[in-house]
Amino acid sequence: MRQEGKKNLRWNTMKILAVGFLGVILIGAVLLWLPICNEKPISFLDALFTSTTSVCVTGLITIVPKYQFTIVGKVVLLLLIQIGGLGIVACVAAFFMIMRRKITLKERIVIQETYNMDSLGGLVGMVRRILLGTLVVEGAGAVLYAIQFVPDFGLLKGVWYGVFHSVSAFCNAGIDILGEDSLAKYVTNPLINITTMLLITLGGIGFTVWYDVVDNGKRIRRHEVPRKWWFTRLRLHTKIVLVTSLVLFLLGTILTFILEYNNPDTIGNLSIGQKFMASAFQSVTTRTAGFFTFPQAGMHEETGFLSTILMFIGASPGGTAGGLKTTTFAMLFLAFLTMLRGGHDIECFGRKIDENNFRVGFVAIMLALGVYIIGTTAIAVIEPDNIGFQRIMYETASAFATVGLTADLTTKLHTGSKIVLMILMYIGRVGPMTIALLFAGKVNLKEKLRTLPSERIMIG
Amino acid sequence: MRQEGKKNLRWNTMKILAVGFLGVILIGAVLLWLPICNEKPISFLDALFTSTTSVCVTGLITIVPKYQFTIVGKVVLLLLIQIGGLGIVACVAAFFMIMRRKITLKERIVIQETYNMDSLGGLVGMVRRILLGTLVVEGAGAVLYAIQFVPDFGLLKGVWYGVFHSVSAFCNAGIDILGEDSLAKYVTNPLINITTMLLITLGGIGFTVWYDVVDNGKRIRRHEVPRKWWFTRLRLHTKIVLVTSLVLFLLGTILTFILEYNNPDTIGNLSIGQKFMASAFQSVTTRTAGFFTFPQAGMHEETGFLSTILMFIGASPGGTAGGLKTTTFAMLFLAFLTMLRGGHDIECFGRKIDENNFRVGFVAIMLALGVYIIGTTAIAVIEPDNIGFQRIMYETASAFATVGLTADLTTKLHTGSKIVLMILMYIGRVGPMTIALLFAGKVNLKEKLRTLPSERIMIG
Ligand SMILES: [K+]
Ligand SMILES: [K+]
Repeated sequence: MRQEGKKNLRWNTMKILAVGFLGVILIGAVLLWLPICNEKPISFLDALFTSTTSVCVTGLITIVPKYQFTIVGKVVLLLLIQIGGLGIVACVAAFFMIMRRKITLKERIVIQETYNMDSLGGLVGMVRRILLGTLVVEGAGAVLYAIQFVPDFGLLKGVWYGVFHSVSAFCNAGIDILGEDSLAKYVTNPLINITTMLLITLGGIGFTVWYDVVDNGKRIRRHEVPRKWWFTRLRLHTKIVLVTSLVLFLLGTILTFILEYNNPDTIGNLSIGQKFMASAFQSVTTRTAGFFTFPQAGMHEETGFLSTILMFIGASPGGTAGGLKTTTFAMLFLAFLTMLRGGHDIECFGRKIDENNFRVGFVAIMLALGVYIIGTTAIAVIEPDNIGFQRIMYETASAFATVGLTADLTTKLHTGSKIVLMILMYIGRVGPMTIALLFAGKVNLKEKLRTLPSERIMIG
Repeated sequence: MRQEGKKNLRWNTMKILAVGFLGVILIGAVLLWLPICNEKPISFLDALFTSTTSVCVTGLITIVPKYQFTIVGKVVLLLLIQIGGLGIVACVAAFFMIMRRKITLKERIVIQETYNMDSLGGLVGMVRRILLGTLVVEGAGAVLYAIQFVPDFGLLKGVWYGVFHSVSAFCNAGIDILGEDSLAKYVTNPLINITTMLLITLGGIGFTVWYDVVDNGKRIRRHEVPRKWWFTRLRLHTKIVLVTSLVLFLLGTILTFILEYNNPDTIGNLSIGQKFMASAFQSVTTRTAGFFTFPQAGMHEETGFLSTILMFIGASPGGTAGGLKTTTFAMLFLAFLTMLRGGHDIECFGRKIDENNFRVGFVAIMLALGVYIIGTTAIAVIEPDNIGFQRIMYETASAFATVGLTADLTTKLHTGSKIVLMILMYIGRVGPMTIALLFAGKVNLKEKLRTLPSERIMIG
């Protein structure tokens, strides 16, 4: 009975998410379509694409925001990114809080499900902390950016640029209003590089992770927990996210550094330190941010391929990321090692990973691969052959994992391909699992309890 | 104790396979290197590559066999293909049988393990049947081919061409001695098309499958089993192989037909019936055969991509195929559907698929993807960017799944890339699982029986 209730709840949460995102995208498209938002005429398709890319915090664009939108349009863009980044649910909760309306138990459970919280207790507190944390981090980011942007663009514009790009980086949207080549102008600027990498990472690891780290830090300061337990006392989820993010960061940085070392189209002409900083930035940005400091179409094909895989893995759940997610990747990798050795339990940091976790992860990667293959094939069918298949693979992974890095392809695509990319961004943001379960919802209730006789088949 | 013995046995089987293939490849390379085998000088690398491609029944080539080898060289080639196709183990067993030496129990078990037979009983009978079956099918194929080749090339050459291509097709080697464009000359010839497709399919579904089908047919003729049970009485393995092969065949045919319909570089200039036959041939050949009737580099990028996926899936275990294998693919797909619906048991044709089957299949796909990604990246690093990434993906999948279809790339590759392809062919033929277990062998014995407390993480 309780199980049934929990299932319905999960169902409702998913419906709210899926429909909520869709609603905000459509409202955003209409707003961005209005003449007051635009410096020059815009087609509804481009307005819809821009709204989708903002709400899904992807960052692939068909127009150049700097020249296309008026200041009103840019503010609308910023709001769409912030809503997309925080997630519809947190926004609704914040709205209720501001309205001082009491949140019903059912609404609480929906919010809790979305963020995978353990207890209902501190829900209002949690939403307040999410909003407060977002405000503090984005504020700090805006100040750091402004140190560079105010001298570059003057006081008013500099502050506005600081705010816009801080929000865009923290929400991992990767949308900029600087022009056509993202942060390429600042490839050698440590302040912009480090600020952006920090904002992306804080936004990408997910709310639950930073609260766990902050809470643990508090306990250590209050001497409730010895300092040496700063890592061991974290939740398993937090540990996996931190370690996987670090490993992927190092892997991406080293591989980009080695493979692109002599490539004049990317980092070949920089000093060694700058090469390293640019490689680190490239690695961080594939964790679904989408800003770039060197042209993505300039990369060697092998680097592009590895970046495609890094993008596909994406960032962490409970944050602003799309893609397969770091935890899913880490868990599948651990499962692979365990099963290769003939072991049974998937172990990690002295804990056994729940059997059901593995099953969900397996479904997640199969779904992600399926959606990715179908999307890539569809765009390849629509576009002519000479466009370059690797660029299509790159752009499709970028859309699905809501990364937004582009190999200069999105602007050149036909209408059909743009629609495919929009669908991929939406599925990537809402989660392929959510979409699949919405369609398979009815079947879900028909639990099969029978067991058939088993028979072995030949594998591999 | 018995479990331990079985493990050691599996270990020995794998070692025999891995070392046996390697030995035959090296002997073949030395033979093909001899002046008596060659019309013109050959580098040892090319001889090694040709030996590898023959023993691993792949078919990617760096030279043109027709012009490179003398008749002696071509006979060596044929023997290498036949040994590779039948598998080292069956060859050794046949050798012992011919020598009239009694096969020891241990040797029997090794052969049984390799072919996944259920009982030890009919081992000698089984090997005899494999050899007899191979002889009969290849003989019939040679006769059918000769009907075309004798008028084309004269009696002696026509019969020899019939034998060579029948063996090459049945072993799914895809190596020809007709020239540079495989069976392209016969694209509109139904006899050559249908004979080749039948040989490929019979060779690709695996010995266990055809014996199951033949035995079942015999039981029906003897009225031991009613005719309507011709399918239900087959083993689960047989059913999965037949259905999956059929589904993949239809899928490949229809997609190739639709996507290439108007492409003048492939099937665009043929009549509707011929387009259909050429599409069917293309679909069958991706089941790891490697012959082709239209140039693979002429395909649209999307068709090439889908062919890459079809090749990666490969043919069935217990046959001559590399790749992921049809059964692994089908089982993972069923597991995906089951888990998406929240079910527990993977069901198929009224049977439950063994839990361990799923674990092995999961390891198999992760290994296959890992090997494939590393191989593709390595070749992309070695070759310049303008070579086209999709062609590298195509060639790598073709090598790993021992298919042998080429997008006109293999001959143009640098030495490093050729070595990568050889390693991929070897891993693909011996099986990535075998290789991995040989390396992880020691770990395999440390069974972990402890159970840690479990903890949930966020997925997807
Ligand atoms: K993004
Ligand atoms: K082959």
